[in-house]
Amino acid sequence: MDMEKNGCSYYENEIKWKFQGNKELNAACLSVRGILNMLLDNLDKAKCKITPSIMLGRGDPTEFPSFRTTPLAVDAVSDALRSFKFNSYAPTAGVLQARRAIAKYLSKDLSYEVLEDDVYLTAGCTQSIEIIISVLARPDANILLPRPGYPQYEARAAYEKLEVRHFDLVPENGWEVDLDSVEALADDNTVAIVIINPSNPCGNVFTYQHLKKIAETARKLGILVIADEVYGHLVVGSNPFVPMGEFASLVPVVTLGSLSKRWIVPGWRLGWIVTNDPNGLLRKTGIVESINNCLNITSDTPTFIQAAVPEILEKTNDEFFLSIINIMRQAADLLYETVKEIPCLSCPHKPEGSMTVMVKLNPSPLEDIVDDVDFCIKLAKEESVIILPGVAVGLKNWMRITFAVELVSLEDALGRLKAFCQRHAKKQ
Amino acid sequence: MDMEKNGCSYYENEIKWKFQGNKELNAACLSVRGILNMLLDNLDKAKCKITPSIMLGRGDPTEFPSFRTTPLAVDAVSDALRSFKFNSYAPTAGVLQARRAIAKYLSKDLSYEVLEDDVYLTAGCTQSIEIIISVLARPDANILLPRPGYPQYEARAAYEKLEVRHFDLVPENGWEVDLDSVEALADDNTVAIVIINPSNPCGNVFTYQHLKKIAETARKLGILVIADEVYGHLVVGSNPFVPMGEFASLVPVVTLGSLSKRWIVPGWRLGWIVTNDPNGLLRKTGIVESINNCLNITSDTPTFIQAAVPEILEKTNDEFFLSIINIMRQAADLLYETVKEIPCLSCPHKPEGSMTVMVKLNPSPLEDIVDDVDFCIKLAKEESVIILPGVAVGLKNWMRITFAVELVSLEDALGRLKAFCQRHAKKQ
Repeated sequence: MDMEKNGCSYYENEIKWKFQGNKELNAACLSVRGILNMLLDNLDKAKCKITPSIMLGRGDPTEFPSFRTTPLAVDAVSDALRSFKFNSYAPTAGVLQARRAIAKYLSKDLSYEVLEDDVYLTAGCTQSIEIIISVLARPDANILLPRPGYPQYEARAAYEKLEVRHFDLVPENGWEVDLDSVEALADDNTVAIVIINPSNPCGNVFTYQHLKKIAETARKLGILVIADEVYGHLVVGSNPFVPMGEFASLVPVVTLGSLSKRWIVPGWRLGWIVTNDPNGLLRKTGIVESINNCLNITSDTPTFIQAAVPEILEKTNDEFFLSIINIMRQAADLLYETVKEIPCLSCPHKPEGSMTVMVKLNPSPLEDIVDDVDFCIKLAKEESVIILPGVAVGLKNWMRITFAVELVSLEDALGRLKAFCQRHAKKQ
Repeated sequence: MDMEKNGCSYYENEIKWKFQGNKELNAACLSVRGILNMLLDNLDKAKCKITPSIMLGRGDPTEFPSFRTTPLAVDAVSDALRSFKFNSYAPTAGVLQARRAIAKYLSKDLSYEVLEDDVYLTAGCTQSIEIIISVLARPDANILLPRPGYPQYEARAAYEKLEVRHFDLVPENGWEVDLDSVEALADDNTVAIVIINPSNPCGNVFTYQHLKKIAETARKLGILVIADEVYGHLVVGSNPFVPMGEFASLVPVVTLGSLSKRWIVPGWRLGWIVTNDPNGLLRKTGIVESINNCLNITSDTPTFIQAAVPEILEKTNDEFFLSIINIMRQAADLLYETVKEIPCLSCPHKPEGSMTVMVKLNPSPLEDIVDDVDFCIKLAKEESVIILPGVAVGLKNWMRITFAVELVSLEDALGRLKAFCQRHAKKQ
């Protein structure tokens, strides 16, 4: 930019401007989106015209024909819009019929009933995270987050100055929580533990027994469980999806969820926060009051999308879900088997659910790749394939690969990944 | 709730629960929505069945037939949805075509061109406020807010620990800014001033000359102008709407806007932030970088609604706008003339725009009404009419009345208001 020509330097000499960007905010804002933007900037546009880029970097397969959402959901939203009845602001906690429908939907998997009053609608799980972190972020408090994890938690916690302590997910144990490290990390100022199941980024699905142990540990520590179940029901392995709310009589559970993943509509921004709390502890400790207050000063998801929720949750047929799961299962197999053939990569645990899996990078057999970030940038440049470097989710020299991808595209991308690794291998 | 029966007391004795609600957050969350919820709770449900309640408390006239949005806008959103092309996550700053269309739309009223890169899409003006306050909230900074004003600014500033200093809008001067008080309030840590035009809550529209003086004052002080133009073009008086961006060569202006008010779709949550900055100062001072970072960790407005923006902005015909303005002009007259007939109320300045006006309450001729809050609660209970007490917008013993209301409903509501005041008048 030509500052001289715009007269900017003169202008600045005359006036002392006092505003400036927020450095603390900038430091907090590490996000998958920011890192993917950086990788996208590294694509070679000329190359992409010949061989289109393939995105294996995020849980958003909407571009692929097989992952098209059900027309029923589109009709439901369109009907609500066309009724002209839902152009107004929504109530603080969301449209009542939607809250009721979500309560009913979640209750099907629980041995007790979630009530409409327990449900708060949000502008996607992103906002669910934002709100629950705001509610918990009192001075000196700390929160336990998984490593690897989903960086939105770290970003929102840094933004709110809530101290983060990381516990490990152990690849050798199918990415189960290292419960000893959880107990060692917690102290009197620990307020909550975050559990993402099905796991983003690891792709495992926790067993009933392991979830129960987590709940018992949280109870022992006197901390809340935040159950991020945005990938709920997206299961391709043998472990069934068990909602953490099942253990709410042991420990209060705040469940975060969304239409985004199961219905393949991440751009609709319809999420929820649900308090699973048969003992009334969240009300008693003021968590419920703070959630309501926070929602009063926060933007909502559009009212007409909220109004479509009952139709979507009640009427979507199983065929739609099964067809998605079927492709994802094949994709998980393909990814797992192909990675085995690539010397510098390994996948310690076959994906069982969510849309992503963690793959370990060993840079030593590679000539000119120093780490995961270097790998992902060069892969974007040379092969037009986008994969998320592990540092983004807390594990250096790992990578998070999305397998919710059209099979033909995944095969193409994995072929390019293989060629890339071969090309960069040290000469024997 | 039966705590004993659920075994809650035993449960609590056994475990020391460490989480709790966020008291600082609760204290920050004063909002129009929260106060309206309180008033709605005061409605007499039995009475409402016979005489339905009338809402004069918020800028949301969607329930009235004359304020129905244009079918063109509904078709545009529905078409984008039905294309199945916009179910994905949106880019950080929003869908490019939408950014371009907003730039073009705003440029029509400016003597220079806004570029697509200057435009950021948000989940309604609520989120625009949230983001710009986050960006500016560095430690020790302060911001100048109007009194009366829109409490979302106070709430977000309190939440972000950004110090607020209030300058006065002067009713005797047509609610113009008291520029002397602005200069007296500002110091080296002042970063910005917020100007809401057309004014919520006052209902005035600032002249070109007064806006220029505000810009010159801001330039002298070296502070940013945040121009909240969510009610842009909603003008019923003789002063035309002049966007503050017109003075961006004097001082950088961040304009906040939305489809909500002019298109009568507050529930769609489509807003924007626009940097009016021909001298490139917002880029240089890092404001632009922080806006981008903040958007990376924040939820968006749904992608398909963003995708409909070009069609909506380019094709809505003037008849739709004129018909709304025509009703609002009659409503403003009716309100202004009726208030004159009520001894305990006065309206110092006839509404010229936005959807609301400030009316002064003199409680002394009333027998059993102590102040504005008391007035509004009793009015809700006895007459099923909701009006916002002035304390909610910073002025005790004033009230904010919405005149964007179907004429027949407004007449009904004003009749009830009159009857209420007569009934509560001191016996002569």
